[in-house]
Amino acid sequence: MPRQFEAMLSEIELGLHSIFQKTPADLHKIDEAMAYSLLSGGKRLRALIPLLVLDSYGLDWHQALYPAYALECIHTYSLIHDDLPCMDNDELRRGKPTNHIVFGEALALLAGDGLLTEAFHLLSLGSEKNDYDVSAALQFVRLFSASAGRYGMIGGQVLDIHSSAKKQETDLSRMHELKTGALLKVAFQIGAILAKTTAEEERQWQDLGIRFGIFFQIQDDILDVTGDESLLGKPIGSDIKNNKLTYVSCFGLEHAKSLLENEYNKLLLQLQAIPVRQEPLLLLFSWLNQRQT
Amino acid sequence: MPRQFEAMLSEIELGLHSIFQKTPADLHKIDEAMAYSLLSGGKRLRALIPLLVLDSYGLDWHQALYPAYALECIHTYSLIHDDLPCMDNDELRRGKPTNHIVFGEALALLAGDGLLTEAFHLLSLGSEKNDYDVSAALQFVRLFSASAGRYGMIGGQVLDIHSSAKKQETDLSRMHELKTGALLKVAFQIGAILAKTTAEEERQWQDLGIRFGIFFQIQDDILDVTGDESLLGKPIGSDIKNNKLTYVSCFGLEHAKSLLENEYNKLLLQLQAIPVRQEPLLLLFSWLNQRQT
Repeated sequence: MPRQFEAMLSEIELGLHSIFQKTPADLHKIDEAMAYSLLSGGKRLRALIPLLVLDSYGLDWHQALYPAYALECIHTYSLIHDDLPCMDNDELRRGKPTNHIVFGEALALLAGDGLLTEAFHLLSLGSEKNDYDVSAALQFVRLFSASAGRYGMIGGQVLDIHSSAKKQETDLSRMHELKTGALLKVAFQIGAILAKTTAEEERQWQDLGIRFGIFFQIQDDILDVTGDESLLGKPIGSDIKNNKLTYVSCFGLEHAKSLLENEYNKLLLQLQAIPVRQEPLLLLFSWLNQRQT
Repeated sequence: MPRQFEAMLSEIELGLHSIFQKTPADLHKIDEAMAYSLLSGGKRLRALIPLLVLDSYGLDWHQALYPAYALECIHTYSLIHDDLPCMDNDELRRGKPTNHIVFGEALALLAGDGLLTEAFHLLSLGSEKNDYDVSAALQFVRLFSASAGRYGMIGGQVLDIHSSAKKQETDLSRMHELKTGALLKVAFQIGAILAKTTAEEERQWQDLGIRFGIFFQIQDDILDVTGDESLLGKPIGSDIKNNKLTYVSCFGLEHAKSLLENEYNKLLLQLQAIPVRQEPLLLLFSWLNQRQT
């Protein structure tokens, strides 16, 4: 990640660590399993987004920290459950054995449940700390539960499970709109809500979030084929192994690459349309555009 | 259940059914799996409690319906995940094949995740419908996420997984305090919050909830040994099969029965201490005390 994000990233890590500071003596096992995955050094992309949106308005990004922690909890829970034997049965994630390999399936299942539940706790905590008022907190609860729920991320997972046989572009975009897009959109929207933008501008941020989700997913699918295993921290070609519907399986590698370039340009245009400082998010987008992991 | 509860129970069923009325065409699978377990005819005990607390004050119980639905979603999610092969590996629940037997493990996992997430959506929906204000809604989010989370229900599950070998009374009561007690306590507390009681009276309801949780669990453990399989809808002796720590394994059947009688009397005394109409909850408690399922 660009070094300009260091202050934000270290605040995020600090906050995520602090979640595990009051473990009751007899419940260390569940915290250990949750912390193992939550603190395993992800990019913190989702957490950064609302902070960068606030920074684009020249506003204090600290007020977005609790929703940022919650976004990471939701993302991590989805990875833990996704890796389980009954789902993708993956044994490596971010260069480390997956949660169920270390803690067993039962505890991994509960660690995922615990992180999902914790996310909502953190959303309410942010309002207790006066980072935002109760109305904003409840709005976040509504956005999170919708975007992570059955007609959001979970629905996308279901489509993913049943996708293997089909190879249609509409299925692909619908699946990703739900599976990764819904939560990414909310990450932008939370920034907009905290910045108290107009409704029109909030809609622009949502559109940017949707665009960003597509861009990010095409790139993820390409990296699964072309990436460096040691940098990615997971085996290359796992989508192919699992017979997954991806942008590469659907369009071929070269076409997927040109789609990516196209989406990147649309993303920049969408950002330009919003009357804010461009630097913070431009920096993120261009860094991501060159990422190898 | 007593026929005096019919109006409440039919409202609860109606509301739970209505959760599945706007399924997008391509996402019917996840709703089907969630509905299968949520609408499989449980006692709706958790949902009834806040309604009965409001009724004890002579207040309109309809305002507690959304939290009541949320309680049922949380309870059902915990049952689905609890039944999975990596947990208790149970194949029968409420007289029907368990969720993963019907839909497969992957979809059962996601159906549980979906119900947990939906609970928080329903809590926010109740305030959108003006059943309660945003502050109460956020307070419910906080109570639910704490009581269902890692230091509540999920923590209790973890203790349960690791309980088999031990046989100590302190472990037993701690496990149940978290696993079933935490959410039952919240069910009473929600009623008190909606009734706008004094802080002292809210504490009395919480204490009643804790007592009720102990009473309910001892009875559950006894019924797992003495119950009628066809009425219970699940195999008798599954606790013994799974080498679970229960009140019966800890104290023996006869001692457990006398503990139950003792707890029932304490429960009635605790209710008498609260200056409300006694009938609604007395009816529930005495019916439960005689239940065979």
